[in-house]
Amino acid sequence: METARTRIGSRVLRTPVLRLDRLWLKLEQLQHTGSFKTRGAFNQVLAAVEAGGLPEAGVIAASGGNAGLAFAYAARELGARAEVFVPETAPAVKVARLRALGASVHQVGCEYAEAYEAATKRVADTGALFGHPYDQPEVCAGQGTLALELEEQAGGVDTVLVAVGGGGLMAGIAAALEGRSHVVAVEPEGCPTFHAALAAGRPVDAPVGGVAADSLGARRVGEIPYAVARRTGVESVLVSDADVIAARQALWQDHHLVVEHGTAAAYAALLTGAYTPSEGERVAVICCGANTDPTDLA
Amino acid sequence: METARTRIGSRVLRTPVLRLDRLWLKLEQLQHTGSFKTRGAFNQVLAAVEAGGLPEAGVIAASGGNAGLAFAYAARELGARAEVFVPETAPAVKVARLRALGASVHQVGCEYAEAYEAATKRVADTGALFGHPYDQPEVCAGQGTLALELEEQAGGVDTVLVAVGGGGLMAGIAAALEGRSHVVAVEPEGCPTFHAALAAGRPVDAPVGGVAADSLGARRVGEIPYAVARRTGVESVLVSDADVIAARQALWQDHHLVVEHGTAAAYAALLTGAYTPSEGERVAVICCGANTDPTDLA
Ligand SMILES: Cc1ncc(COP(=O)(O)O)c(C=O)c1O
Ligand SMILES: Cc1ncc(COP(=O)(O)O)c(C=O)c1O
Repeated sequence: METARTRIGSRVLRTPVLRLDRLWLKLEQLQHTGSFKTRGAFNQVLAAVEAGGLPEAGVIAASGGNAGLAFAYAARELGARAEVFVPETAPAVKVARLRALGASVHQVGCEYAEAYEAATKRVADTGALFGHPYDQPEVCAGQGTLALELEEQAGGVDTVLVAVGGGGLMAGIAAALEGRSHVVAVEPEGCPTFHAALAAGRPVDAPVGGVAADSLGARRVGEIPYAVARRTGVESVLVSDADVIAARQALWQDHHLVVEHGTAAAYAALLTGAYTPSEGERVAVICCGANTDPTDLA
Repeated sequence: METARTRIGSRVLRTPVLRLDRLWLKLEQLQHTGSFKTRGAFNQVLAAVEAGGLPEAGVIAASGGNAGLAFAYAARELGARAEVFVPETAPAVKVARLRALGASVHQVGCEYAEAYEAATKRVADTGALFGHPYDQPEVCAGQGTLALELEEQAGGVDTVLVAVGGGGLMAGIAAALEGRSHVVAVEPEGCPTFHAALAAGRPVDAPVGGVAADSLGARRVGEIPYAVARRTGVESVLVSDADVIAARQALWQDHHLVVEHGTAAAYAALLTGAYTPSEGERVAVICCGANTDPTDLA
């Protein structure tokens, strides 16, 4: 984890923390490109540079969301090429944002799975580095660097609440704080990858739906994240879509923070009591993304 | 200033700072009620408590904006009554927010001046404490406490850019950092109270218009703020409404921060070059308010 931190250095922002009594909000939504994904992207790409240099063909990612933005940004900052594969259904604004970061965008198929397949084929053809959204050691370690910052900023917390999609963020945090903080994985009922894996005793396909599916809607939790979470005793709780929506509104109304639904899930666990801290418990919530349309927050 | 800080204590949030290379953004828009005004309000009200206790009639303010919210909040937290006078034209949402904080809201006349007059009459009748928006020593000192925090958080900066309405925020900061940081007062061309005062050699009436008039549209800069600003050598720059609008958009698009137009003015001075830092200069921008409708940021 310290290796990742040193490697990434000042290419990412040390995002601030807002203290509200015994609750610490890690404002990682203020990170470059609006999410923590930039940490993991830099760590994976820079590790490849260290290991002998990036391929001519640069970096390829399959994601219309935050992972795509993060790899496009990291590639641009490092002077490398980036190609991002997204479904034809990806919103024009997301495609435009990827292009603004200098990425070549390929719109393929109707579903993420088709874009992913095209991306892996292109990686095989070109020798580019495949930027993984979560199930990759450097990516998980990169995400975990935010937990090291948080620990310094808050002076240590008992519990960290974090939203889970493929689980890279959860795994990075759990590994970074192992033995010092308890990690609670929060998922919307509509896309419960980690919850389903715990129930099955291994990563399995889970439903992909609900308001936070654009960021948390991985098909299944990654193998590495699952193993790390089991080893470190990550707890799993679920929240409803209505809770997520209300938590996002509350973060704006009460705390003047605009976050995406995926981020609001973690905060929802506190508001609803899905996770209830004990008296005096020091709790942190990871505000992980701000790539959202604020129109409905009026 | 340290007196104010001790007095206010943990009733206000220590708002975080976002570092972007040599620029520090003080995220004071995350303060309780969404602006720095809460600091000054607490300091004035608590000073009255110390000086013998609050009157039975509580606190009266004349403001449909951030000062009204701040005094309503401070009064509620201290178990005191609050009455807030606003024009009949005040938006329903602002009135509702004041009522939600437990204040009695009086809608009087068509202009702020009429609401102000009614408020001062009511103060005379009831003996309530008049909560001043800016031209009052404890209010200025309260606002200045954010500069002490900023100094600790950033490790000292050369220059602080701050938006000016009646000037309480500018004065508090300039006094707090006197001899250590240069303060630049930024105003939209549509409501240039400090700029007009400098030109005239004393506080004079200035136009009240433009996109930031709801927060920066004082009729003239206060006597205390003007005196402090002259003594400490505060510099004055102007920005256009178009610059303010673009800066507010940029804070959202580039940094995922939602602020009101009054706040964006300070940042606009950097974007436009109205203030150009020299090589290596350490600059801070005070993000002072978030009471805004984010609908147009989509
Ligand atoms: C804002 C946000 N939060 C959380 C997640 C979930 O992260 P992970 O896939 O590492 O679990 C994502 C993934 O894209 C995200 O964009
Ligand atoms: C958000 C915001 N910024 C700046 C100001 C200006 O403050 P001052 O009147 O102390 O100059 C105000 C005043 O209401 C405000 O609400």
